[in-house]
Amino acid sequence: MRIENDGLGNIEVPEGAYWGAHTQRALKNFPITREKFDEEFIRAYGYVKKATASLNGKLGFLTEEKCEAICKACDELIAGQLSDWIVVDPLSGGAGTSINMNINEVIANRATELLGGKKGEYLVHPLDDVNMHQSTNDTFPTAGKMAVIVLLKELVVAVEKLQEALQIKEKEFWSIMKPGRTQLMDAVPISLGQEFGAMAEAISRDRWRLYKVEERVRMVNLGGTAIGTGVAADRKYVLSIVNELRNISGIRIAKAENLIDATQNMDVFAEIHGLLKALATNLLKISNDIRLLGSGPNSAIGELKLPQVQAGSSIMPGKVNPVVPEYVIQMSMSVMAHDVAVNFAVSSGNLELNAFVPLIIHYTLKSLRFLTNAAMSLKEYIVKLQANNEKSRENLLKSEAVFTPMITAYGYERVQRWIKKSREEGKDIWEIAAEETGLKIDELKQKLLGKKSMGLGQSEKG
Amino acid sequence: MRIENDGLGNIEVPEGAYWGAHTQRALKNFPITREKFDEEFIRAYGYVKKATASLNGKLGFLTEEKCEAICKACDELIAGQLSDWIVVDPLSGGAGTSINMNINEVIANRATELLGGKKGEYLVHPLDDVNMHQSTNDTFPTAGKMAVIVLLKELVVAVEKLQEALQIKEKEFWSIMKPGRTQLMDAVPISLGQEFGAMAEAISRDRWRLYKVEERVRMVNLGGTAIGTGVAADRKYVLSIVNELRNISGIRIAKAENLIDATQNMDVFAEIHGLLKALATNLLKISNDIRLLGSGPNSAIGELKLPQVQAGSSIMPGKVNPVVPEYVIQMSMSVMAHDVAVNFAVSSGNLELNAFVPLIIHYTLKSLRFLTNAAMSLKEYIVKLQANNEKSRENLLKSEAVFTPMITAYGYERVQRWIKKSREEGKDIWEIAAEETGLKIDELKQKLLGKKSMGLGQSEKG
Amino acid sequence: MRIENDGLGNIEVPEGAYWGAHTQRALKNFPITREKFDEEFIRAYGYVKKATASLNGKLGFLTEEKCEAICKACDELIAGQLSDWIVVDPLSGGAGTSINMNINEVIANRATELLGGKKGEYLVHPLDDVNMHQSTNDTFPTAGKMAVIVLLKELVVAVEKLQEALQIKEKEFWSIMKPGRTQLMDAVPISLGQEFGAMAEAISRDRWRLYKVEERVRMVNLGGTAIGTGVAADRKYVLSIVNELRNISGIRIAKAENLIDATQNMDVFAEIHGLLKALATNLLKISNDIRLLGSGPNSAIGELKLPQVQAGSSIMPGKVNPVVPEYVIQMSMSVMAHDVAVNFAVSSGNLELNAFVPLIIHYTLKSLRFLTNAAMSLKEYIVKLQANNEKSRENLLKSEAVFTPMITAYGYERVQRWIKKSREEGKDIWEIAAEETGLKIDELKQKLLGKKSMGLGQSEKG
Amino acid sequence: MRIENDGLGNIEVPEGAYWGAHTQRALKNFPITREKFDEEFIRAYGYVKKATASLNGKLGFLTEEKCEAICKACDELIAGQLSDWIVVDPLSGGAGTSINMNINEVIANRATELLGGKKGEYLVHPLDDVNMHQSTNDTFPTAGKMAVIVLLKELVVAVEKLQEALQIKEKEFWSIMKPGRTQLMDAVPISLGQEFGAMAEAISRDRWRLYKVEERVRMVNLGGTAIGTGVAADRKYVLSIVNELRNISGIRIAKAENLIDATQNMDVFAEIHGLLKALATNLLKISNDIRLLGSGPNSAIGELKLPQVQAGSSIMPGKVNPVVPEYVIQMSMSVMAHDVAVNFAVSSGNLELNAFVPLIIHYTLKSLRFLTNAAMSLKEYIVKLQANNEKSRENLLKSEAVFTPMITAYGYERVQRWIKKSREEGKDIWEIAAEETGLKIDELKQKLLGKKSMGLGQSEKG
Repeated sequence: MRIENDGLGNIEVPEGAYWGAHTQRALKNFPITREKFDEEFIRAYGYVKKATASLNGKLGFLTEEKCEAICKACDELIAGQLSDWIVVDPLSGGAGTSINMNINEVIANRATELLGGKKGEYLVHPLDDVNMHQSTNDTFPTAGKMAVIVLLKELVVAVEKLQEALQIKEKEFWSIMKPGRTQLMDAVPISLGQEFGAMAEAISRDRWRLYKVEERVRMVNLGGTAIGTGVAADRKYVLSIVNELRNISGIRIAKAENLIDATQNMDVFAEIHGLLKALATNLLKISNDIRLLGSGPNSAIGELKLPQVQAGSSIMPGKVNPVVPEYVIQMSMSVMAHDVAVNFAVSSGNLELNAFVPLIIHYTLKSLRFLTNAAMSLKEYIVKLQANNEKSRENLLKSEAVFTPMITAYGYERVQRWIKKSREEGKDIWEIAAEETGLKIDELKQKLLGKKSMGLGQSEKG
Repeated sequence: MRIENDGLGNIEVPEGAYWGAHTQRALKNFPITREKFDEEFIRAYGYVKKATASLNGKLGFLTEEKCEAICKACDELIAGQLSDWIVVDPLSGGAGTSINMNINEVIANRATELLGGKKGEYLVHPLDDVNMHQSTNDTFPTAGKMAVIVLLKELVVAVEKLQEALQIKEKEFWSIMKPGRTQLMDAVPISLGQEFGAMAEAISRDRWRLYKVEERVRMVNLGGTAIGTGVAADRKYVLSIVNELRNISGIRIAKAENLIDATQNMDVFAEIHGLLKALATNLLKISNDIRLLGSGPNSAIGELKLPQVQAGSSIMPGKVNPVVPEYVIQMSMSVMAHDVAVNFAVSSGNLELNAFVPLIIHYTLKSLRFLTNAAMSLKEYIVKLQANNEKSRENLLKSEAVFTPMITAYGYERVQRWIKKSREEGKDIWEIAAEETGLKIDELKQKLLGKKSMGLGQSEKG
Repeated sequence: MRIENDGLGNIEVPEGAYWGAHTQRALKNFPITREKFDEEFIRAYGYVKKATASLNGKLGFLTEEKCEAICKACDELIAGQLSDWIVVDPLSGGAGTSINMNINEVIANRATELLGGKKGEYLVHPLDDVNMHQSTNDTFPTAGKMAVIVLLKELVVAVEKLQEALQIKEKEFWSIMKPGRTQLMDAVPISLGQEFGAMAEAISRDRWRLYKVEERVRMVNLGGTAIGTGVAADRKYVLSIVNELRNISGIRIAKAENLIDATQNMDVFAEIHGLLKALATNLLKISNDIRLLGSGPNSAIGELKLPQVQAGSSIMPGKVNPVVPEYVIQMSMSVMAHDVAVNFAVSSGNLELNAFVPLIIHYTLKSLRFLTNAAMSLKEYIVKLQANNEKSRENLLKSEAVFTPMITAYGYERVQRWIKKSREEGKDIWEIAAEETGLKIDELKQKLLGKKSMGLGQSEKG
Repeated sequence: MRIENDGLGNIEVPEGAYWGAHTQRALKNFPITREKFDEEFIRAYGYVKKATASLNGKLGFLTEEKCEAICKACDELIAGQLSDWIVVDPLSGGAGTSINMNINEVIANRATELLGGKKGEYLVHPLDDVNMHQSTNDTFPTAGKMAVIVLLKELVVAVEKLQEALQIKEKEFWSIMKPGRTQLMDAVPISLGQEFGAMAEAISRDRWRLYKVEERVRMVNLGGTAIGTGVAADRKYVLSIVNELRNISGIRIAKAENLIDATQNMDVFAEIHGLLKALATNLLKISNDIRLLGSGPNSAIGELKLPQVQAGSSIMPGKVNPVVPEYVIQMSMSVMAHDVAVNFAVSSGNLELNAFVPLIIHYTLKSLRFLTNAAMSLKEYIVKLQANNEKSRENLLKSEAVFTPMITAYGYERVQRWIKKSREEGKDIWEIAAEETGLKIDELKQKLLGKKSMGLGQSEKG
């Protein structure tokens, strides 16, 4: 153990720890929840610290020596080499102060080492040097938005791949006719391919939404310091820091026009998360449809053959379960839950700051990860789906709704009578229809079950 | 009472009612919740029925006589003259079938009257004539989206006016300096005008979002009938009906490219409602800030004078309460609640249909109304807000955080010592600072409390 | 129009209106949402006003004449005769002040009439007489809790009837064997009756929960006035008023021990609503199960015959849809949405009051009504459900999982091989099992599909 | 790497891993979310496996040798020595199958080692031995409920301590008079102690609720195997296994009467989580009140002195922030979010199983941990809170609402005039009141600000 002092008094810090006094207190104040901040967030924070050091060096506020040491330490943080020392709970109080301080202390201690000092000696000071011209209130949301941009890109790729997998199945299953179902009840025919085509279309909307929303996250408040007025920061620094950060990180950010607004209002996260949630609704619906289409397979719908990605039941031999759609559903439900927390937190900001920005950013990043995982897993799964042609045909022949197009020629009521008769007399509806229309069963089937039934506006002129 | 028969048997319908058998059964199946469908939805449904009749007339599927009678009845529905007869619960089951049938029956009976018949005689038939080439599954979401477009426009106007009101206050309060507060604690100075400017900026984002989202709602599935394949509808009809509807209604809609997708996937509502919810978070945050700034007014912050729009307490004389912000908060909380229901319902669609589209559309329209009401009320209220200059100044002088810019010249620790000394000795901090810096109190105040403290990047070079 | 003055100035009130100036301003401040307060809440508020008048009369604070007039007016309000004049929006701001004032004004004007005066003359004064010794802050939550108690009783009855209907089906369907399904996939056998028995058991838990929670709502804060200290109320009044109210209303309430707590903390509503939500989860699950069991009916599970409570599709002849379960699901989703609003509002109380108590009570009462409606509709529907014995048997014979009990005699892997063989060779699994076990198919069926398979712990000793 | 085969084919498993083929596939199917199952859940699962092995041994289904080896391996799992090998994601699909299999495999491999074999040799078989007479569907919810019981006890203790801390402050602050505030506006006087007393009362309700709910969780479905019919389990085993588990674990569980219901219906978790959420609303409200009472401290309410548990701002010297209440608020918001996921999942069960039970149990356990952490942190923080007597007095003297008791003697309108006069003329209200009443200011203060003003039913008879 070494002793550090943070103005509140002495406190023991584990000998080898890169963190310092502030972090140590935070560990006590905020019992850990087992949540961990996303690595992209830590990386982004590393870029923020590097950019500020770099600019402060250029502007003469930091010696070249310190500047270099800080930048090197930041590079290590960015490379994930110091991640083990970022220990503060993502849901800690203080609007992120403890996380900012954890990062400041780790960089300061590492830079101190690089300059030949020992941990705790602070040849580079966490506050005066590493945090120079900064506040938690501008660095934290800036790092958060950068991480969102990085993870959004990954998500867009995953969603794109999912869409492609669905489109491949759309083609593969194009000519497999089967009964449609509305309100879970037998309805007019559709092809299995058309069903996957509709899924692909929905996912394409998500792709577009997520692609477009990136531009909403770009506006960052770095330079605004405590409340967006840039207090205690040099004016030259304030005007250039976002440029510096964009250059160093390669992430396309821009300085928010109204830094006060950008510091206190978190509605952009409500907006983004709202779109993540829209994706979650589509993933959930698609997963449920796959569960339904594969249900049984013998005693229910069974039009899809579910891939056996792992042994099913530990008690029922031969059982194959839709485990991946179930996983995707749980991811989606989680995202909807995060949405509630994010909205609650976004709307709970007070005056110059939203104290709950850690929660907002943590859950947004979690949702991004969850959805990327879900989209990737689902894509792998969809690739393995197979149609059950026989069951599809069998089901189609059983569905009375295939006679719907006949209403334009024979009237709604007359067709209804055929169906009623079939039900009451237990007689095959195709036979009844043949009798009533004077057509052969084969002709009828060609009319009603052929590809034409997939086309727009099928109606029978009698 | 008159007797009608709907294939399930006879049923008594009140003599004067424009509705018929189906509606009557729905009233029994779905005990009313006291919810009512938005009038814009009924109006939009009127346009849908008018456009289909009109096109069916042109294409020769309806006689001129019937076509004219239906169109006239639709005009009355659109004008709100038949609204009392639309009685089915908005949350009824059946994916909207009962509401579609309620509308079909009312139009059929009214058209029958216009042709000289009596209610129940059905010279114009609710299904064969009024519902020709349609299904609930395409008419209902189409009418829903049209109503959303109309109400979105109203909301955008309300949000615009709110933004303007905030900008007026931004200018009016521009030079009133006061302490900022982060985490509710005294922070560096800000002007009251800057605070309202940040609110205006947040609302301007909402305005932009809502303006842009309109285009997402335009794609309608009319013509797709039961599942989007347009079954039982004439092909010519399918291809022209959306154009007809756009022309007749004047609402800018377009035919969805994939009608199957547009029939079963409701993610667009999750998207829109997500944005409504983002507005709700901003309204809630702003309302809370007004509550805080006006709090006390004597024993708390009191920097805003709340307008007395009604007598306050019934027991405490002279009390003025922030009743309008409280109303806005309750509207916002309601919108967040609707969001949960909408997402749940959107993700609960199955295969070719989402059976819960009535809930989705009903709550979306409710949220639009709630937010328009909220924005308008808040705007009226903001216009009446006044600054309390004395309290603002008094508060500012009490805040130790005004000394923050001194850290660049004197160091964080030294400034911290002044504050500590002031607290421990109960001595005025301005006096201490004067002693320590050798500056006069007046000079200090000019430096730290003047307009400069509002500007970007204030830091003291000593 | 008549002119009234409420201290803020003159305001025009419609000539015939029983409400007064305060209500009139509220109508302007809070644009109506089309929400209406539950009639039981208005009735309960009537009891509160009657009890306070009665006690104030007994204690000599009100003349006998005024006391009698107020009590008579309250009786009319309780009987629903004045409901049309309670017009303030349930989600208005002011912690319910406007609603309390609306009621005070209506009673005052009606009492004034009873004493021979005219509306607006206020021979009985809304504040000094009708509101004597009261605040919105104690009357409002008290009336709210009373209404909750009344509606809870109705809900418990509805839930009880639902449970009974399920139990009747449990018996009726007891011997109909069918495949169980886990994760929607064919699983070991179960009887349709057992499935309804499990539903009944779940609902019985709801019944117990709702029955027990009533006692949590009984503690009311009447007499606490503004903040629970009973300021400006006579001590004798404070000590007796809840007794008076219990006697007059016949509703079993009791005085909260800590009136300050009972005025500001609304967690009891979070608790109650949490239980309402638990019922909603059960109703939703049961409704979905009925939808699944009745799905198809030809091309999906179809083990239940859904009752045709109304014509199904307007386009597909013969279609029967599960409209009542869909309605129940939408009610349940709404309750879950209300839950989010209630929790948000409950946790948003500040210091001595929760300003959002109108929202809390309004949505709680709505949820109670929605659930009562849902339970009653579902009960009616369940009574009409019929089993499809043939489909159940047919499905059972198709399910490979019926061979699960054989694993105890033949081992998991061996049974798995039979199933694999059946799938690969397209050969009937019963034949394979017969070959492998040396038993006749009939014997096997008796063993595996008979009633024994419903009993506890079936395993085959070979 | 070693090769294992699970019927689906060969798969590589890391050499030293205690898990096997099934777990390995799960790691691929379900990309990890960084969530981890609670250690109490793993421990409970260890008890379940030990009890089943023990009973199977006693009943002669397992050899003594295997039985002993399994029991020993379970003991290690219970002691946390094998936790590193439980790697499957808590939100994996399959209704928990992969987690059950992960545990089965770890125990089987460890038992194999204990019997002298090597990992992968399976002298003890994961399915036939460790999982004997079990299904995921009964073991998983049983372990989940046991973990809930354990964590509930810890939470009850934490809540109890929080209540005590609040009660200590209630006494400590009893005589510090200060203005009450309703709707954040100055209201009648209250003592700081009364405020803490109300908090304590609210928390005491939570304590009672949580204490009572334990009995709802006790009913477990172990022995029901796949769907609650106990298929493939020996009858003797089915009847005794819960007893065995209770004895071995010391956790008070009981066999559910209806095992089918207990397997498929998860409403008990909706109920429990509803109560956790009620606690969250109280914690949130209390935390916000502490934030408000400590706000400023100079330029806002400042009646509480917040403890400085860590350095505040990194930029504003001397700033103390309410970091612990902020942490508690974020925990509470998270619990409310979990509630949405839990309800969604509970209501999404289908027929004989709820496939989303992993999510339900995982989030319930998380909420229990979060709330225990929150309650403990808040308790530590409350202990350190100090009153600011001067500010309280100063605020009280500023509040016009202290004159409310005078309305009973002088009338509402007359008191209102004093206040109006004071505001308009900027004259001290105490002086005005003295003039108007003929009393001395000191007398007035004694009347209105003394302890009497805390008592029930203060009203002035003039």
